[in-house]
Amino acid sequence: MFDFTDRDLEESHDIRIIGVPFDGTVSFRPGARFGPAAIREASDGVETYSPYLDAELESLHYADSGDLELPMGNVETVLSITREAVDDCLNDETIPFLLGGEHLVSLPAIESVFEKYPDLVVIQLDAHADQREDYLGVELSHACVMRRVSEFLGDENIRQLGIRSGTKHEYNLMKSFGTLTTFRDEDLEGLVEWIADRPVYLTVDLDVFDPACFPGTGTPEPGGIDWWTFQRFIKAMQGVDIVGLDAVELAPQLDTSGCSSVLAAKCVREMLLIAANRV
Amino acid sequence: MFDFTDRDLEESHDIRIIGVPFDGTVSFRPGARFGPAAIREASDGVETYSPYLDAELESLHYADSGDLELPMGNVETVLSITREAVDDCLNDETIPFLLGGEHLVSLPAIESVFEKYPDLVVIQLDAHADQREDYLGVELSHACVMRRVSEFLGDENIRQLGIRSGTKHEYNLMKSFGTLTTFRDEDLEGLVEWIADRPVYLTVDLDVFDPACFPGTGTPEPGGIDWWTFQRFIKAMQGVDIVGLDAVELAPQLDTSGCSSVLAAKCVREMLLIAANRV
Amino acid sequence: MFDFTDRDLEESHDIRIIGVPFDGTVSFRPGARFGPAAIREASDGVETYSPYLDAELESLHYADSGDLELPMGNVETVLSITREAVDDCLNDETIPFLLGGEHLVSLPAIESVFEKYPDLVVIQLDAHADQREDYLGVELSHACVMRRVSEFLGDENIRQLGIRSGTKHEYNLMKSFGTLTTFRDEDLEGLVEWIADRPVYLTVDLDVFDPACFPGTGTPEPGGIDWWTFQRFIKAMQGVDIVGLDAVELAPQLDTSGCSSVLAAKCVREMLLIAANRV
Amino acid sequence: MFDFTDRDLEESHDIRIIGVPFDGTVSFRPGARFGPAAIREASDGVETYSPYLDAELESLHYADSGDLELPMGNVETVLSITREAVDDCLNDETIPFLLGGEHLVSLPAIESVFEKYPDLVVIQLDAHADQREDYLGVELSHACVMRRVSEFLGDENIRQLGIRSGTKHEYNLMKSFGTLTTFRDEDLEGLVEWIADRPVYLTVDLDVFDPACFPGTGTPEPGGIDWWTFQRFIKAMQGVDIVGLDAVELAPQLDTSGCSSVLAAKCVREMLLIAANRV
Amino acid sequence: MFDFTDRDLEESHDIRIIGVPFDGTVSFRPGARFGPAAIREASDGVETYSPYLDAELESLHYADSGDLELPMGNVETVLSITREAVDDCLNDETIPFLLGGEHLVSLPAIESVFEKYPDLVVIQLDAHADQREDYLGVELSHACVMRRVSEFLGDENIRQLGIRSGTKHEYNLMKSFGTLTTFRDEDLEGLVEWIADRPVYLTVDLDVFDPACFPGTGTPEPGGIDWWTFQRFIKAMQGVDIVGLDAVELAPQLDTSGCSSVLAAKCVREMLLIAANRV
Amino acid sequence: MFDFTDRDLEESHDIRIIGVPFDGTVSFRPGARFGPAAIREASDGVETYSPYLDAELESLHYADSGDLELPMGNVETVLSITREAVDDCLNDETIPFLLGGEHLVSLPAIESVFEKYPDLVVIQLDAHADQREDYLGVELSHACVMRRVSEFLGDENIRQLGIRSGTKHEYNLMKSFGTLTTFRDEDLEGLVEWIADRPVYLTVDLDVFDPACFPGTGTPEPGGIDWWTFQRFIKAMQGVDIVGLDAVELAPQLDTSGCSSVLAAKCVREMLLIAANRV
Repeated sequence: MFDFTDRDLEESHDIRIIGVPFDGTVSFRPGARFGPAAIREASDGVETYSPYLDAELESLHYADSGDLELPMGNVETVLSITREAVDDCLNDETIPFLLGGEHLVSLPAIESVFEKYPDLVVIQLDAHADQREDYLGVELSHACVMRRVSEFLGDENIRQLGIRSGTKHEYNLMKSFGTLTTFRDEDLEGLVEWIADRPVYLTVDLDVFDPACFPGTGTPEPGGIDWWTFQRFIKAMQGVDIVGLDAVELAPQLDTSGCSSVLAAKCVREMLLIAANRV
Repeated sequence: MFDFTDRDLEESHDIRIIGVPFDGTVSFRPGARFGPAAIREASDGVETYSPYLDAELESLHYADSGDLELPMGNVETVLSITREAVDDCLNDETIPFLLGGEHLVSLPAIESVFEKYPDLVVIQLDAHADQREDYLGVELSHACVMRRVSEFLGDENIRQLGIRSGTKHEYNLMKSFGTLTTFRDEDLEGLVEWIADRPVYLTVDLDVFDPACFPGTGTPEPGGIDWWTFQRFIKAMQGVDIVGLDAVELAPQLDTSGCSSVLAAKCVREMLLIAANRV
Repeated sequence: MFDFTDRDLEESHDIRIIGVPFDGTVSFRPGARFGPAAIREASDGVETYSPYLDAELESLHYADSGDLELPMGNVETVLSITREAVDDCLNDETIPFLLGGEHLVSLPAIESVFEKYPDLVVIQLDAHADQREDYLGVELSHACVMRRVSEFLGDENIRQLGIRSGTKHEYNLMKSFGTLTTFRDEDLEGLVEWIADRPVYLTVDLDVFDPACFPGTGTPEPGGIDWWTFQRFIKAMQGVDIVGLDAVELAPQLDTSGCSSVLAAKCVREMLLIAANRV
Repeated sequence: MFDFTDRDLEESHDIRIIGVPFDGTVSFRPGARFGPAAIREASDGVETYSPYLDAELESLHYADSGDLELPMGNVETVLSITREAVDDCLNDETIPFLLGGEHLVSLPAIESVFEKYPDLVVIQLDAHADQREDYLGVELSHACVMRRVSEFLGDENIRQLGIRSGTKHEYNLMKSFGTLTTFRDEDLEGLVEWIADRPVYLTVDLDVFDPACFPGTGTPEPGGIDWWTFQRFIKAMQGVDIVGLDAVELAPQLDTSGCSSVLAAKCVREMLLIAANRV
Repeated sequence: MFDFTDRDLEESHDIRIIGVPFDGTVSFRPGARFGPAAIREASDGVETYSPYLDAELESLHYADSGDLELPMGNVETVLSITREAVDDCLNDETIPFLLGGEHLVSLPAIESVFEKYPDLVVIQLDAHADQREDYLGVELSHACVMRRVSEFLGDENIRQLGIRSGTKHEYNLMKSFGTLTTFRDEDLEGLVEWIADRPVYLTVDLDVFDPACFPGTGTPEPGGIDWWTFQRFIKAMQGVDIVGLDAVELAPQLDTSGCSSVLAAKCVREMLLIAANRV
Repeated sequence: MFDFTDRDLEESHDIRIIGVPFDGTVSFRPGARFGPAAIREASDGVETYSPYLDAELESLHYADSGDLELPMGNVETVLSITREAVDDCLNDETIPFLLGGEHLVSLPAIESVFEKYPDLVVIQLDAHADQREDYLGVELSHACVMRRVSEFLGDENIRQLGIRSGTKHEYNLMKSFGTLTTFRDEDLEGLVEWIADRPVYLTVDLDVFDPACFPGTGTPEPGGIDWWTFQRFIKAMQGVDIVGLDAVELAPQLDTSGCSSVLAAKCVREMLLIAANRV
């Protein structure tokens, strides 16, 4: 089975998994802090072979650096510890793969990757726009993460798929910047063409999935994608140059059946397989 | 966020939300009594803006009258208290929007609305026919509610969508009366044409959704609709003259993930937006 | 309601339900031992009439023989007790319908049926190939059940639908033997033609369903079928000569909403209705 | 194991178990309707031998008549069906042992037993006084059951143990009538002396236990008794002439650990053993 | 029933309930943010009359100011909003009664009360010492709250009951300062004598209760008190001059039986009754 | 915090923790296989300092060897793998400390320790006698483990505390052999005197605790001990020569509050501290 806790940092590796168990800015229902542990546990019941991609994880060089130790209640410190871990990863010429935690943890990761790859594009899968200027006066919030990213990356370098919730203001923003796209085959083709050979950071807020498939998340939104839609996306991205990635917002205790954790682990398997294209 | 507990009766309003926390005739698994409270709580995590309808709840005039205080164990009294609350609502020239509770609570509401609008039609979204003559000898039962309604309204003024469970006798009834229709685009168009400009009571038994989307209900039935089907229905109904409506049969404690309550709250948002057409 | 505990062995019957509450070789998450009891309980909320098949269970001759008493911790004894119960059933000229329990319980049932019907074909609905030679050195494991079956039946007499997880080796096996097929209409037609008038054992590992529909199982696999796909399969099988069948791997305690048990009970109803074709 | 579903009505018996799955007047949290089924299921893990009483259940003559079929939503009918079942039981010269269901089901049972034994005394174990005149205008409510009983039996023939919740009015009532007593050894002795050789109906509202021991009930009250206190009570009652008894208010789904059901089953075992004194 | 949501700020009142739904520094398991809402909901099933104190809540003048709106992810702002609410309360000559949230919310409350009452003493009921200098480098943490308090109040003005977990360093601190005492009758008498007529802030970390009674908390510690011990404490405190109080660390979603919320609501009732001594 | 996953085998150590995640013979409710992982996870929230023993875990030399990889469905192999791990441990002159898993895993451990220490005595804390000759014909069952042990060790070298469930036959056995004793202070003193300087294997079936404290176990039995009774036992055992020990039968998924896992982790801390006496 695909139990990635077998793979430790002492082995040479191309992709490094970093657990970021933080959910300190979550306003509705916390619990994403338990996400990385749940993905590791569920991975033990998932095969290493992907019949979709006809690819085998066993031959990949990846390592699991475990979870960062983070002080709840101090957002700035959390972000700087995360930033440092991603910097280290890039310095070691490995691809960072963060397991959230809440979506805010993508911010220091994208900052770090952007510093190394100034022509970076960000592909966001998400139910929520995450484009608020602030949330109850807080600017470093999971609800604002893409706004923060666009401030240094530029909205023109972002594409968002699966969005189905936001304020009218956020929708106006996204429409004016043209960041929104869909999972239709033709749009996925257009997306890959638009990316061309630029380096990509892929951030997957797992609530992009329908709550039917993925109830274990703090802010479920009806109307999301299913597994096969995600598979088509993954297939489309197969040739792309991925330089950083994350999977966030699993709150496993909200789904007592454990199915959300299994789905997240299976997403991680597929994402590892396409990230390995680069290496 | 769309927290409708903000809106109290003292503000002038066009639509009035009435919680009816009753589940006293439920035979299989109770808990719908907790539905109204759960919808209110979940609404706090739902945006006021609907990207589907491109419409904003903030500008609507609606109020929440809270929950009726109901004596469990006395069905007749429960129904007469509910009837009175709907009568008051209509006397105040506002549209009643009931939150169940079990489906039986629709009966006094439809009676009251019918008295005011004798050319009323009833649109029922439901997994179950609810057309039994009686259930274990009880005529005022959630399993008989549409039979009771048809006795005064006439079967010819009822349309049922999403039905996928019933006795052979109920199916024979529905076929002979022609009450059954589907969510196919052409059937939705036909439905709207059939309604024409008659006043509509819309009763949504939330178990019309597939249990995958909506496990939090007493009698789940595989094979239901998903969010996008509901959206198409809502869009189709946008021009229609809605004079009363309800959303019933959420039993939130059966879905520990809370996703059913979120879906219900989001349905309520969309239903509020189309009910506002009239005003 | 369809409460099959009403039907006891003393009535004459054509189909016999046998509960096999065993999950002793399950490696990931146990609980399938509670499957038969949960299906019986849930059947109490399911109608006897199938609107899909327009058929009524009431007129069928089936009986419920209750659960076998099985010593956990002794796999060989469990299998021989199960074998004996199926032998008895066939000797009485009734069709055995097993309720699992884990998938391994199908092994003695298929062996017994095969002895009576040497031209038997096996149709397997499942998420997992179950084609391993052994699992952690154990050959009598739920993960190996179809490998064991093929050893006496021949791979050429097996067809597998819904498979979406396995090792590379298992996939290679299945491809070389041509056992894999799909739920596409043309493939279902092809399947029925291939069966022709041979006797069929139908084994339904309920994890063939998507975890959204059926979270209550030990090893959920995203990407499974929904209710309507199962319905199309059932319709396609209506004319076929079914001589034995089972529904396995419901672990009800993993789905606190109870929806998985309801779905399983409804599957059992449809399977009873098509098994009655023979009689 | 003590699986009393083995014992059916066709065997001759001295004590008859009657399941009364009704919770229709419960105001706070329903679910006691699932009590009888949960006790039966849990009894399968409980030994037949009581080391406390050094007594063995195997040799007792008792039978399980299963659950009454009751129409939710019609309290009067529910009570009359229950009354009839207890009448039948007494006509057959057997002791009725009801499994609730809510506490209201004790009312028809006590009425019936009182008709046969006019010198009856009632011993109530309970957290709540249940002495309200009415509850939200309803007189046939679980919160009023002892008031209704005292109307025909007389307060002087009732003793209440474990009460720790009530209105000021209820406490005044109980104090003026002197119905309250405690589990102290001297009070238990006094109780038995007071009973003398009169026939006893023993009604055990299981919420008399502390919620720590018995969380599975609709209205938990901190400060209740533990298992050993109940044992001392049972020992004290060993010589007493019990002519009817019940155990009510288990709502098993509220305790996902199942411990409440196990405790209830073990109480039933001990109560069966002391009820057998008479025979 | 004791539903304190009935009591709003517009009525004149002596005690003001303030919900502080914050759990941002909790390191182990979050969820105390849901505490105030759960206490309100559970209070609906709790009588207004306390048989222990023979006192009635109905005649008290208290109000519920609802929950503070707090930005998760910004501890300083949370503390200053809380401080302001308590300041307002004291300015209005009412007693603040905070419902947590995590224990850190007591800090601004005690600061505010101390400013008004410089001879204040603090009585802490808790399982944990909460005397760390910092926790993972964070000084404003639930694990440090009593250290922060003692910095301005002086250790000599603090007494701690129920403590059963801490580092060796914390135990050394508490022993040298003599802050530890017990629930033995003689120690409670000594405590009241020591308080004399000084004003008291009573902070109740509900995890002082044994996890058997109160499993719904983030960091349960075996060996805690039961309901009757708490009652003896409350009785002992009846004459004391309470000027501020709180009940914190209920994480209701961790106890699906709801018993923890009921116990918390009943504690709040008793605490309201003794706080009313002053007025 | 006491996170014993920090301590790996490569450090020199005196006590070795061995996870044995097996529950294959459990007849009632499985899940003890998840015990070792849950204890590790919960240990992260438990302090390293024991105020009861005034002792600190940090200075101890112990290591965690992780979980054995065990083939479910093959009891003999499971027992021989466990036996081998304990043999290795003893060969390395370290004390084995097993974390179950079901109680049967104690059998190979005691066999191995007995081979090294022929004058061994076994102290069993348990709710159940575990003295059956066989269970449904199976001799290697959790319900028979002490019978198997006594066959090679002799009943005269066993003492059992906390037993409160068994067959009449088992009670007769225990009484005739005099193996039963209690937690009364005088009995604990007698126990220690009886042990004298003989080597001790301490086996703690955690269901010795009351289900109120420890609901997370397959076969809960009302009437068990609480934390302080266990503490008195631990204190009494402080001078004793412990050469092997285990803590078994935590089934964590049955207690969704997590309190059972926390209690188990705290027991392990105390047991580690007294086992360190020897070294």
